[in-house]
Amino acid sequence: MAEKTKKAIKKPTKSTQAKAEDVDVKALFLGPRSENRDYFKNMLSFLMDEHLHWRRDFHPEDPNVTSASEMRSEHFQATLDRTSEVLLSLSAKLKEDSMPWFSARYLGHMNSDTLMVANLAYMATILYNPNNCAYEASPVTTVLEIEAGKDMATMLGLDPETSWGHITTDGTIANYEGLWMARNIKSFPLAVKKVKPELVKGMDDWQLQNMPTGKILDLVDKVRKAGCFDAVRNETVRGTGVGKGTLGVVLVPQSKHYSWVKGADVLGIGNKNLIEIQVGDNFHMDLDVLKKTIDDHVAKKIPVIAVVAVVGTTEEGSVDEIARIVKLRDDYEKKGISFYFHIDAAYGGYSRALYLDENSRFMEYDELKKRLKSDKIFIHDHTYPSKLIYDSYKAMGKADSITIDPHKMGYVPYAAGGIAIRDRRILDLISYFAAYVFESGENAPTLLGSYIMEGSKAGATAAAVWASHRVIPLNITGYGQIIGRSIEGAQMFTQALQKTKSLKVKGREFIVEPLVGTPDFNIVCMAFNEKGNTNLDKMNDLNEAIYNESSYISGPVYKNDWITSKTALSDADYGVAPKAFVKRLGISEKEWNRVKSVYVLRICILNPFLSHSAHIPVAWEQYLEIMKKKIEQAIENEK
Amino acid sequence: MAEKTKKAIKKPTKSTQAKAEDVDVKALFLGPRSENRDYFKNMLSFLMDEHLHWRRDFHPEDPNVTSASEMRSEHFQATLDRTSEVLLSLSAKLKEDSMPWFSARYLGHMNSDTLMVANLAYMATILYNPNNCAYEASPVTTVLEIEAGKDMATMLGLDPETSWGHITTDGTIANYEGLWMARNIKSFPLAVKKVKPELVKGMDDWQLQNMPTGKILDLVDKVRKAGCFDAVRNETVRGTGVGKGTLGVVLVPQSKHYSWVKGADVLGIGNKNLIEIQVGDNFHMDLDVLKKTIDDHVAKKIPVIAVVAVVGTTEEGSVDEIARIVKLRDDYEKKGISFYFHIDAAYGGYSRALYLDENSRFMEYDELKKRLKSDKIFIHDHTYPSKLIYDSYKAMGKADSITIDPHKMGYVPYAAGGIAIRDRRILDLISYFAAYVFESGENAPTLLGSYIMEGSKAGATAAAVWASHRVIPLNITGYGQIIGRSIEGAQMFTQALQKTKSLKVKGREFIVEPLVGTPDFNIVCMAFNEKGNTNLDKMNDLNEAIYNESSYISGPVYKNDWITSKTALSDADYGVAPKAFVKRLGISEKEWNRVKSVYVLRICILNPFLSHSAHIPVAWEQYLEIMKKKIEQAIENEK
Repeated sequence: MAEKTKKAIKKPTKSTQAKAEDVDVKALFLGPRSENRDYFKNMLSFLMDEHLHWRRDFHPEDPNVTSASEMRSEHFQATLDRTSEVLLSLSAKLKEDSMPWFSARYLGHMNSDTLMVANLAYMATILYNPNNCAYEASPVTTVLEIEAGKDMATMLGLDPETSWGHITTDGTIANYEGLWMARNIKSFPLAVKKVKPELVKGMDDWQLQNMPTGKILDLVDKVRKAGCFDAVRNETVRGTGVGKGTLGVVLVPQSKHYSWVKGADVLGIGNKNLIEIQVGDNFHMDLDVLKKTIDDHVAKKIPVIAVVAVVGTTEEGSVDEIARIVKLRDDYEKKGISFYFHIDAAYGGYSRALYLDENSRFMEYDELKKRLKSDKIFIHDHTYPSKLIYDSYKAMGKADSITIDPHKMGYVPYAAGGIAIRDRRILDLISYFAAYVFESGENAPTLLGSYIMEGSKAGATAAAVWASHRVIPLNITGYGQIIGRSIEGAQMFTQALQKTKSLKVKGREFIVEPLVGTPDFNIVCMAFNEKGNTNLDKMNDLNEAIYNESSYISGPVYKNDWITSKTALSDADYGVAPKAFVKRLGISEKEWNRVKSVYVLRICILNPFLSHSAHIPVAWEQYLEIMKKKIEQAIENEK
Repeated sequence: MAEKTKKAIKKPTKSTQAKAEDVDVKALFLGPRSENRDYFKNMLSFLMDEHLHWRRDFHPEDPNVTSASEMRSEHFQATLDRTSEVLLSLSAKLKEDSMPWFSARYLGHMNSDTLMVANLAYMATILYNPNNCAYEASPVTTVLEIEAGKDMATMLGLDPETSWGHITTDGTIANYEGLWMARNIKSFPLAVKKVKPELVKGMDDWQLQNMPTGKILDLVDKVRKAGCFDAVRNETVRGTGVGKGTLGVVLVPQSKHYSWVKGADVLGIGNKNLIEIQVGDNFHMDLDVLKKTIDDHVAKKIPVIAVVAVVGTTEEGSVDEIARIVKLRDDYEKKGISFYFHIDAAYGGYSRALYLDENSRFMEYDELKKRLKSDKIFIHDHTYPSKLIYDSYKAMGKADSITIDPHKMGYVPYAAGGIAIRDRRILDLISYFAAYVFESGENAPTLLGSYIMEGSKAGATAAAVWASHRVIPLNITGYGQIIGRSIEGAQMFTQALQKTKSLKVKGREFIVEPLVGTPDFNIVCMAFNEKGNTNLDKMNDLNEAIYNESSYISGPVYKNDWITSKTALSDADYGVAPKAFVKRLGISEKEWNRVKSVYVLRICILNPFLSHSAHIPVAWEQYLEIMKKKIEQAIENEK
């Protein structure tokens, strides 16, 4: 049957990339004023008709289940009435309290309008209700998921022939999956020693614990050839569980998402073995500290299971120095020290599209800078990207695995996370069915649920991601355009903040500072302070009061004219990193050491209409006026 | 701010349950012939208009982002054209190869038509795109999720005041979450001993490893009062990771879903510590074997972390003997032996609605039997439910946690799993933020992502589940009606199989046998054999050939007239359980011992229109004819 099944499974098709001139960013979204309402409604109606007739076309000879007269009965109608009642009450709730992501007045969390094509593809698929856990339950959408996964892997710089990618429900689960692979593969060489020692002859435990990922995967192949793969796998963590003291530690930057803390718990590694590396005042992982931490553990003969870096931290949008970390890893490997390398690019992953030309080639630095201008990706002056950031994006494909969320910078609706993996042979270390990886990269698996953390999963999500990728090329002409606008919005916002010497409100004077001088990506954190105030508590209270006036705290957001988000940067989480920032706001080091936490407003600029519109709904001057009003409301509440 | 936040968060409303006479099952689904197309399309169109105007009503003074003339430009139109092209190609793919779940000709996996209200609620919410990870990103749908979670917990027999429930992406993740809680809570008493020994004075390690869940949670309260909760929690598995030999084993029936095998790996427990308990020929976990396994481990001083039982196994639909397992647990507790008890009711959970009256009261056995008849839940004669199954459902609320999937018997679209937990204090053992459980059961958490395995999650899923629960009461008048029909379908199907002495095809004679005499739930497994054939390989080939003719293997399912699923029951997975079944088909014990695996067709009857329709599209006689045709096709392919 295996043979028959393989033939029955459809191969993913070659992706047909859109041409550069096809993509008009404004035509991709419903729009803040429902500008594309006609297109949206017509297309939705047609897609629904397609489904309704599909049902009717399946064995048209089969009779109706419900007769017209039954449908007219009071009993039947009462059920429809109740359905309407509940749906309209849901709609009313949604209208009352939902977040106006679509508006330029919303500049808070990682949200904006989502792609029309993604929403329509999701809705078109939902009535077919495919389950991508098993091919048999999703002959269409499993193939689309494999294609979408390949799109992501390719965009991230991985070799489409040897890598693979798939959709997860979110970045948290993708991060767990990366950690799961790191943990299991790290325990493989010692398991070989236990079952088939001749295959690792001459290597001591420390060497086995420090085998590079690629070498371990070659060893997996050898073990399979020797016919003892199942026996060996049963002696990895998968079979034995996590043993005390044998696995080692995982290193993450302080700026990591909290899913890494949850993950160290879930995966049985333990939070004590999750070591946080200090970030600098640019919120990049400090590589000297990283190096020292690795050295300290090596000196104690404690293996480093994995190093995690972040591309697009969730609080600051900062981008860790990937190229330098890759070099550091390569240097350590020469010294016989090795770790798995995972990049959490849940947020920043799609922005790599900006660096790719029409042929998915990572452009030269000067070439990129030229095209950003000539393609009108940026229409204002700023320095993005620095050579440092450019190098970081360039080196991403050197990681072992990468988290990337379509429901963030992919502009598709929730829930759609994802992961891309450099060498798909690693799947055998986590898969339920032993010793089987679908042999050709072109084929879809019959039971996707066997190779991933999740089980049942919505095929509609895969359809939404796939369709978005088909309309919007994963390069500078497609996603690059959208994300470029988002990045430019953050650059403009920061420059404007820096130009704002002070805001006068009710005879008092307030200053404002961005967290960093030039954002790595599209998040701007900032704080206000009353001029001359040196009390950090008072400054924190002011920013909290402004947040309260600019969020759901003060009542239905729908009636608000500016909605943002906030975060707190504390000594406990960030060490010395925020010191330079609070200093610029007039807070002394002594005062920082007393309070040890600063409250900031956090503005994620995903909105693609901010930088390029001549008449954006709320232009910079208006933002300033609104902020003044918010400060006024905030200080009115002072006792 | 904490105070302010709490006030801003909306309280879940009291659920308004539908009256019994309101619910007409046929009015709940779009229908196999798109019977409810007018209602569906009108309501969808209105809900979309609601959203389009909501956008326009938000600060109506803000200007358009896109002008009408821009929208007429070739550039803009070309992007819309490409969007249409991609969406229509998606629609074409979906029409070509999707599974006709809606049809009575589809009797395979756990699928059928899904609820109109669920699909419409999902679509209504998708454009608002709430993210239930954080209240701030989902002020409407987080509250709906808490309400839906409470609905599920109450239906499962848990106390709504002290329990809680939430939606997961699927049953696999829900199972992991149950195992996560079991693992972490089990390691708490020893952590107390390490940090604050006076709180567990006089108890030895074995006693600490065998504290009942409730007692541990009381100890958690004490530890919190003593001010050392964080320090203790840091010494549980959460902080230290899984240590070798300290945790113990997890016992699952052989009939478990494979997510338990994945889960033992993911959670760092190890597959070797996942012990499979033999099932009987009724596919219930054999309680003598369970008892013996516990005793063996106790004798070796290996703790039992958890026992898992299944309500609705995915292959056979069997229901483990919950009441007896609860009694066994209570008996062991008296002897100082204790384990966490999780029920995997991913599939069977919603069927508990059948046993509840309008006031969510679990009915007496005789009362239930009477109402099943008087309410016309069943219109044919059969014995469902036996007292054994009745007692199993009754005792479900005694478990520590229960997996339940709305995307299975809740008839909502993917992806919607769920979990309900008996004592919500347990959340502190897995939550990211220490020592905080939202104090009142009525309030929604500000950061749901902190208390669960996942992070970002679609609020649209919560809306779909919530709306379904509001239209369809979670008792005999609502879900009980739908699921009752599904159960009756399986009973009828089995009776009909039993009556079928033989099928004559091309001069040859074939017999058919159901796997069990009376299904516990709504799955019927069956196998054909040529009369007189004693060769198990040959019998397996026949059934595989029939499956191939009745699935995607033989070409687009859309052109097929009967689609089913299959499974294999092997000695490796099921031990002696399938012996009685193959014997009824004329296979000797010796032959079984030679081949050790039987191929069966697996028919999940979720279709709610099978038992009650006078003119179902494919009545039993037609099914027989189709099966004969399939056998004919199958034997034609014989060489």
